[in-house]
Amino acid sequence: MKLCRFNNDRVGVVLSGQVVDVTEAVTRVLEGLPPVDGDPLIAYLDQVRAGLPSDLLARQAAPASAVSLLAPVRLPGKIVAAPVNYHAHIAEMLASNISPGHNLADIEKAGLFLKATSSLVGAAQGVAVRFPERRTDYEVELVAVIGRAASEVPVEEALDYVAGYAVGLDITVRGTEDRSFRKSIDSYTVLGPWLTTRDEIEDPNALRLWLSQNGIVRQNTSTADMVLSVAELIAFASRFYTLKPGDLLFTGTPEGVGPIHPGDFLHAACDGLDAMDVRVRAYGDEA
Amino acid sequence: MKLCRFNNDRVGVVLSGQVVDVTEAVTRVLEGLPPVDGDPLIAYLDQVRAGLPSDLLARQAAPASAVSLLAPVRLPGKIVAAPVNYHAHIAEMLASNISPGHNLADIEKAGLFLKATSSLVGAAQGVAVRFPERRTDYEVELVAVIGRAASEVPVEEALDYVAGYAVGLDITVRGTEDRSFRKSIDSYTVLGPWLTTRDEIEDPNALRLWLSQNGIVRQNTSTADMVLSVAELIAFASRFYTLKPGDLLFTGTPEGVGPIHPGDFLHAACDGLDAMDVRVRAYGDEA
Repeated sequence: MKLCRFNNDRVGVVLSGQVVDVTEAVTRVLEGLPPVDGDPLIAYLDQVRAGLPSDLLARQAAPASAVSLLAPVRLPGKIVAAPVNYHAHIAEMLASNISPGHNLADIEKAGLFLKATSSLVGAAQGVAVRFPERRTDYEVELVAVIGRAASEVPVEEALDYVAGYAVGLDITVRGTEDRSFRKSIDSYTVLGPWLTTRDEIEDPNALRLWLSQNGIVRQNTSTADMVLSVAELIAFASRFYTLKPGDLLFTGTPEGVGPIHPGDFLHAACDGLDAMDVRVRAYGDEA
Repeated sequence: MKLCRFNNDRVGVVLSGQVVDVTEAVTRVLEGLPPVDGDPLIAYLDQVRAGLPSDLLARQAAPASAVSLLAPVRLPGKIVAAPVNYHAHIAEMLASNISPGHNLADIEKAGLFLKATSSLVGAAQGVAVRFPERRTDYEVELVAVIGRAASEVPVEEALDYVAGYAVGLDITVRGTEDRSFRKSIDSYTVLGPWLTTRDEIEDPNALRLWLSQNGIVRQNTSTADMVLSVAELIAFASRFYTLKPGDLLFTGTPEGVGPIHPGDFLHAACDGLDAMDVRVRAYGDEA
């Protein structure tokens, strides 16, 4: 199933590129369930699915291109991200010196980092470049959305804790500040185009992931090049803290990162997860 | 006003060390107000205050020592923290080499960092030492609770965006990992004993802040020793991202940090904000 949020906080099911509004059914299901520690739509995804109208295909739908896509998770408790998790990106960062003074060590020594939930937007909201005088990069990533509380989970069971996947952009200002600061600027975390539930992705580490900028392919890799697999990242994170329903795990970016500028048009895609189009604008300009 | 959360998600007003349960009045006020981007109790603090029963002093109360204190903010959107914000602590860190490889530069170069909201606990929940083989330190801090959305606010107006203050512990595993990872372990962010509203604190940078461990004073300073004042930190943060109602700002720890061990008893206090007692236990032991 592909589930989106759109327009004025509506929830939709995406079927062959068409969005069917299921907000009322989702609201009815969630109202009948107890409060949960995490995002309720994600925590109760099975119940929501079971409560959807059976005649979805017969219902009125709008083309996905005609709605404003919001981030498919409304309010994650935390956004976790992997700093140096593709072999070829580590080589690129070491060679280019674009991140001087930062820890580019083995990811288990570098640890994961956090991005502010206030930086999260959907594809339609776009990215507003806050510091045009500083180098600001796109970084495309595969994102796992956590489906249930995960603490000290073994690698072999880790993918059972995933609700689904989406494509992410970890927009990054280069500089001396802590990663969790310069990657947390408003609109610097893009998630979309929608959530694809776990059952549709057989192996998250066998997907092609790519990004083009103004029509030119800049990043293009297989998620098989990750240093720690999605399952290993979840297990690693869960040794430090509890992952909760709706938490996002950005799994790292491959090689090919580069600067963005207002006016840019980013197209980010992943096998099985579809693509999102994201506009870059100047800070202060309308989305 | 001093507002606490206690026991099974109850809300209380603290009067002369006595807790008056005001959960019903608070719930009634909040039910009548529109949803808000942030913690509703904090966002609507003025309305909550106006809606409290007028006979608080005549109501049944329990001694604060007889209730289980939870974190006074239920679910902050983000927890922001200042890494190197007391002159004497920077000197201590540089001399001791307990944080090798980490950025101890000027705070405006180092930036702020994030702690996971899943790490937040109240005084009664205590701290569970997750990695007993690694050095894990107490760090007492003054915490500002943001009261309304703050983006690019000038220093002179910054304190108007504060709802109130509390005492915090930024529990820290030393090591190579990103600050936002090794400081985000479950129970490693303690906030308490309660929220003291802004009107009770004339100048947040003229307070004595101290911590004792098993009865021995370890940290004892004035918040006047901060590198960036509370107002300057808010202004700085708000140039990168929007602070929202309920967001927590940990303003940095003074000199005197040191390791904790299961069985320890921490007493953390600040002028005007009262004191909290926090037990340290082994991971897996009952709180």
